[in-house]
Amino acid sequence: MSEDKIKQEAPSARTHVKRYNWLARYDRETVEEILDAVPLAHVGCMINGVPFVTPTFFWREGDRVYWHGSAAGRMFKVLEQQDICMTVSLLDGLVIARSAYNFNCNFRSVMLVGRAELITDEAVKTEKLKNFVNGLIPKEWERLRPVHPKEIKATAVASMSITEASCKIRTGPPQDDEEDYEFPS
Amino acid sequence: MSEDKIKQEAPSARTHVKRYNWLARYDRETVEEILDAVPLAHVGCMINGVPFVTPTFFWREGDRVYWHGSAAGRMFKVLEQQDICMTVSLLDGLVIARSAYNFNCNFRSVMLVGRAELITDEAVKTEKLKNFVNGLIPKEWERLRPVHPKEIKATAVASMSITEASCKIRTGPPQDDEEDYEFPS
Repeated sequence: MSEDKIKQEAPSARTHVKRYNWLARYDRETVEEILDAVPLAHVGCMINGVPFVTPTFFWREGDRVYWHGSAAGRMFKVLEQQDICMTVSLLDGLVIARSAYNFNCNFRSVMLVGRAELITDEAVKTEKLKNFVNGLIPKEWERLRPVHPKEIKATAVASMSITEASCKIRTGPPQDDEEDYEFPS
Repeated sequence: MSEDKIKQEAPSARTHVKRYNWLARYDRETVEEILDAVPLAHVGCMINGVPFVTPTFFWREGDRVYWHGSAAGRMFKVLEQQDICMTVSLLDGLVIARSAYNFNCNFRSVMLVGRAELITDEAVKTEKLKNFVNGLIPKEWERLRPVHPKEIKATAVASMSITEASCKIRTGPPQDDEEDYEFPS
């Protein structure tokens, strides 16, 4: 794919992948495939002047991602006032080459940027939490002790659009420098 | 452990864990155990007004962590001008309770905050990259085609102290509300 093509496809300047841009993908299908492959995300959010990275479960519904936590948590108090980043990554393996410079890893990652919002309606929040639980374990919500209203109040649920998304994917064998292929391996 | 004790032990106000603080650990041994358990970190760094989260390999030597990338990468151009965060996390399993509210996961995580610095001396950079490669695969560096000086120039190596570190660890079975133990499971 030509660099011009890739630039055209990035949904925004800040999601345009510059390093190793031949690994970049911006299509929705790839974004969703990676998001759906693992329930763990890392959210970047400025708190007291530090871009804290918080690991969290997340889930996807349609064109949005969701995550939850304690309503008293510091991230949920500030995340609607800034653009944040959610990164989902899977390390698939080491790629061992003939030179250190060509060492690599096979991986899949998605970076989402944008403005998140908190769900305030308690019925919607409950529905989203149900989708989270049942997404991890089908029909689990129905098996559980019904939620208490105070539990829903104590839980924050955030959501963000997956509009501004970029992926990076590496697969396959190592790629050595042409002149290195004769190096004893 | 009492909350006063935990507060005393946090190396700084911004690394003091508030939510689920009974899961917090600040001792160096625990920090190092988690850092040494997995080579993948997520670095939070403000770039163009967004707290981008970048997945990266990292390694530890003594009381510092190191990571590397393309010297032309945007993170390495700005990371010395701000405090950043490195998070290392391992998801060890789902913890399935009798209520959604007491669902949990077993996990280990470390958050490091502080000011990173780039290594400029090329001999030191080479030594650090050797330690990285040999840390992943013992004696691998010696097997490889020797590095070219231009490869070292093209590679940035960052390092950060692990002084400001906090861990969170959850292990063990679910903990249900007392009155839920009679709920059919």
